[in-house]
Amino acid sequence: MSIANPTVEQRFAFKAPLPLKSGSSLPEYELVYETYGELNADKSNAILICHALSGDHHVAGIDADGKKGWWDGYIGSGKVIDTDKFFVVCSNNLGGCRGSTGPTTINPQTGKVYGADFPIVTCKDWVESQNELRKYLGIEQWAALVGGSMGGMQVMQWAIDYPEKLRHAIVIAAAPKLSAQNIAFNEVARRAIMSDPEFHDGRFLDQETVPKSGLALARMLGHLTYLSDDMMGTKFGRELREDKLKYNFDVEFQVESYLRYQGEKFATKMNFDANTYLLMTKALDYFDPAADYDHDLSKTLAQATAKFLVVSFTSDWRFSPQRSHEIVKALLDNDADVSYAEITSAHGHDAFLLPNDHYEGVFGNYMQRVYDDIPTAEASV
Amino acid sequence: MSIANPTVEQRFAFKAPLPLKSGSSLPEYELVYETYGELNADKSNAILICHALSGDHHVAGIDADGKKGWWDGYIGSGKVIDTDKFFVVCSNNLGGCRGSTGPTTINPQTGKVYGADFPIVTCKDWVESQNELRKYLGIEQWAALVGGSMGGMQVMQWAIDYPEKLRHAIVIAAAPKLSAQNIAFNEVARRAIMSDPEFHDGRFLDQETVPKSGLALARMLGHLTYLSDDMMGTKFGRELREDKLKYNFDVEFQVESYLRYQGEKFATKMNFDANTYLLMTKALDYFDPAADYDHDLSKTLAQATAKFLVVSFTSDWRFSPQRSHEIVKALLDNDADVSYAEITSAHGHDAFLLPNDHYEGVFGNYMQRVYDDIPTAEASV
Repeated sequence: MSIANPTVEQRFAFKAPLPLKSGSSLPEYELVYETYGELNADKSNAILICHALSGDHHVAGIDADGKKGWWDGYIGSGKVIDTDKFFVVCSNNLGGCRGSTGPTTINPQTGKVYGADFPIVTCKDWVESQNELRKYLGIEQWAALVGGSMGGMQVMQWAIDYPEKLRHAIVIAAAPKLSAQNIAFNEVARRAIMSDPEFHDGRFLDQETVPKSGLALARMLGHLTYLSDDMMGTKFGRELREDKLKYNFDVEFQVESYLRYQGEKFATKMNFDANTYLLMTKALDYFDPAADYDHDLSKTLAQATAKFLVVSFTSDWRFSPQRSHEIVKALLDNDADVSYAEITSAHGHDAFLLPNDHYEGVFGNYMQRVYDDIPTAEASV
Repeated sequence: MSIANPTVEQRFAFKAPLPLKSGSSLPEYELVYETYGELNADKSNAILICHALSGDHHVAGIDADGKKGWWDGYIGSGKVIDTDKFFVVCSNNLGGCRGSTGPTTINPQTGKVYGADFPIVTCKDWVESQNELRKYLGIEQWAALVGGSMGGMQVMQWAIDYPEKLRHAIVIAAAPKLSAQNIAFNEVARRAIMSDPEFHDGRFLDQETVPKSGLALARMLGHLTYLSDDMMGTKFGRELREDKLKYNFDVEFQVESYLRYQGEKFATKMNFDANTYLLMTKALDYFDPAADYDHDLSKTLAQATAKFLVVSFTSDWRFSPQRSHEIVKALLDNDADVSYAEITSAHGHDAFLLPNDHYEGVFGNYMQRVYDDIPTAEASV
């Protein structure tokens, strides 16, 4: 059994200040993480999974609350990322709300929760903190870094900032930076949260409340952008919630009911922190590694030495295949070793989390290549 | 001069009850409207313009406040809809907030503003009320009905419900019904308004307040869906509002500033009524004329006898060209006289309001045909 049942939450504490891209710094921090599979003798079979906006460190297996990991379909014994072969690590990002230092953590300098005082974090900062975790785990080089959406952005940042620390970079449903439309959707979501009177300028926990309705709105909107028009049409069409039209402002159509449920669940049952949501959307907005290299993506990715697998999905309109093409082209400008697959899927941005034979085939084959590239693979099993 | 300067607001009062599609009814109503150009002797050169979600009756010319009509670029002396040739009428829809009976009107049965008590209205109800205006103006048959977006839906409804009352139907950037995604966007906008504590269950005027922040959010989101990703990229890219990144929750990018401004303007300076916004989005959701004809659009449009011009825009993702194709195909199933143009434009859904040579050419040529079709055109000039 390569995944403990239930999964075990581990903690890494870094007791020195972490300077941040913003110019601010964190006096100290902790990362919560999970691992699956066995680290081999020379620590060469480790894979780091980077999570997306609302994700966390519980990526595979079943936790103590009975909750399945968010990518459990792809990570486990005999799965695409095979925990019989690899040692898989996933940590909750700084600024998160699932255990790593973030807005719901006590600020050691004030003795109160950070709340709105938590500094803006960026992809670069996440990579810095994950690199400290790497050192702590004694891993010299990741066999691969893997991430979808915002996770894919962290993988790119790793490949640029610490090229020698990874052999393979797997970048799924991502983009080299957000478009104006992407930023605009994030801004509407943030406005929804910040204009909720229960937000209290981000100090809502001090007031023993949470901006539920703003957070639910933000999630509804986010969810909308993760799904394709076609898929929503197939899934819901114009199906009514009840037999006939009521001609009032209650829910009439199934799609309304579904979205309201998603928003509610996120804000209440899942208890996601509103400040974390704000921070994650800002980190997305700020992600633009080429800004440090004359806004030239080819020059930027010239830093990378890892081999790449880039994957996009046909119906993804949040980060469309065109955005992956930009990454692939910039890698090819550098004669990098890059594989690219454009997967036919009706599931929009969400496709990266869902079962899909072609996707699983491409991804699984590539993971075999990652395994074959482990310097002492024979010795390590 | 075919358009009075300033334009003159006229009123039509209907003193009998109007039964509504919902089963409810309005005890009486008024429509505010403007007209431009001269009605010819046999009243055969009249054109009705139907407005979209946030539009009103002031479609051309300059009003007493110095405000230009929302489609002034296309309507006037020598313009696409030539007021030297046509008598152009545009009324504010029932449920509107610009003068026609709506949520901000006094309910004669209670002596208070309708507010949330204003009944749900549909495209069919609008057509009924516009048809009463037609009778009042003594017009037997419109030379053409013209509308973009929600306006185009009213034109379709007219062609189905009163086929003999129009010779031409011009349907621009519309759809035969909303998709699940369209409804979902409307629902998020409605949630934004209804979850604003200043909404007070729609009785905000009684409380001497307005749900500004909810309405601003709804408008930001709406605006986002009117623009194309490409156009936003060209117009804003990732341009910063100030010289350098500030790493805080103030506006960083121009696109954020632009959207906030649009939301603010709509909710304050333009003083748009929140209940009207809710009603208009519901009317859009409910629009589905084929529901009355076994959900068969071809059978539905078999009712129509008008000649059609259908226009779509390549970058419109709110009502994409595919949605216009559905309309055109259903018309062709009936061997209807239909012209169709797919206009190349980067401006998304908004393109129907903006200058575009190809669009103006197609539209203008078609209007000449409408003019040539006036039974007594020679006598009327």
